[in-house]
Amino acid sequence: VLLYNSQPSGNCYKVRLLLTQLGVPFEKHEVDVVNREGRQELLGDKNPALRVPVLELDDGRHLAESNAILWYLADGAAYLSADPFERAKTLQWMFFEQYEHEPNIAVVRHRTMLGHLGDYPDSETRRERGHGALAAMDEHLGEREFFVGDRYSIADISLYAYTHVAEEGDFDLSGYPAIGAWLDRVAAEPGHITIDN
Amino acid sequence: VLLYNSQPSGNCYKVRLLLTQLGVPFEKHEVDVVNREGRQELLGDKNPALRVPVLELDDGRHLAESNAILWYLADGAAYLSADPFERAKTLQWMFFEQYEHEPNIAVVRHRTMLGHLGDYPDSETRRERGHGALAAMDEHLGEREFFVGDRYSIADISLYAYTHVAEEGDFDLSGYPAIGAWLDRVAAEPGHITIDN
Repeated sequence: VLLYNSQPSGNCYKVRLLLTQLGVPFEKHEVDVVNREGRQELLGDKNPALRVPVLELDDGRHLAESNAILWYLADGAAYLSADPFERAKTLQWMFFEQYEHEPNIAVVRHRTMLGHLGDYPDSETRRERGHGALAAMDEHLGEREFFVGDRYSIADISLYAYTHVAEEGDFDLSGYPAIGAWLDRVAAEPGHITIDN
Repeated sequence: VLLYNSQPSGNCYKVRLLLTQLGVPFEKHEVDVVNREGRQELLGDKNPALRVPVLELDDGRHLAESNAILWYLADGAAYLSADPFERAKTLQWMFFEQYEHEPNIAVVRHRTMLGHLGDYPDSETRRERGHGALAAMDEHLGEREFFVGDRYSIADISLYAYTHVAEEGDFDLSGYPAIGAWLDRVAAEPGHITIDN
């Protein structure tokens, strides 16, 4: 398969991490996430949202949205439960990730890395909401090892991606001890790779 | 089942519509979406994001995030494909809905209905992004009847919820003819109910 990729993007890292843990060989096509010129030509017929990651299957079909790609790759494999309720809970946490977590933590991190944080009037609101998402995660993890069914799954991969680099957006994680312990557990999973891989 | 519900919320409407089309009887527990006092006490142990809808199953377990609830209810039924790629495409469009569509169109509608639109510095940015989502939908629907696999599915239910009331946020839909025709097709599906039901 071919992955339209941005190396610093947590959304793309999710897909690289799962492909690696599943042992699926893949190639990368690097896409600039700062200079967005040429996006329409490159991604227009592959993802209507014009964002990466996009996965190109060997038959030429394309799939977008990081968590939809995780689901496609993991279904039937070890990283997604076969139980209907646990599967729905996995989706619940992945929708939480895209609604409560990514738009706040990833966006603040991105603006911080580019030195543009102060240019946006909503940066502090996003920081507050990001802490709200972290607090909800910390409370949930206080009682369990992983997000769903006490096993490492794509729910963990999804939430790990931007949580483990949240400090690059100046989110202090020291107040979330259950998250700290969970980050260590995820990083200790067989086949784990870091975001620079 | 019991649905923690807000009648004007498109996210809750998705669940009411699918439950009705599936013929699943349900009760409603109305939750105030303007006055958020008491949310922690009411929803704290049911949904870490403290939002509705939340579905309470007959065994007392809870499921949150509207699109995760749709998936749980539809899996194995007529409104979700059995084909792995079509299932992933269904998720792609539902993640698109929660990332590109709902935070823009639903939020602008909510602020407009409360008369607070001008109080937020990001309202116009959200309006622009909402139009971006509508343009992407219109282009996709220009070539097909429904979002995935040319059959009515939970991807359509998800995207219908806030699109069909977008004009309550002063989004003019007349420039999106393929969306207009699709709204009519969705409303003509057997068992359809309106948002006030």
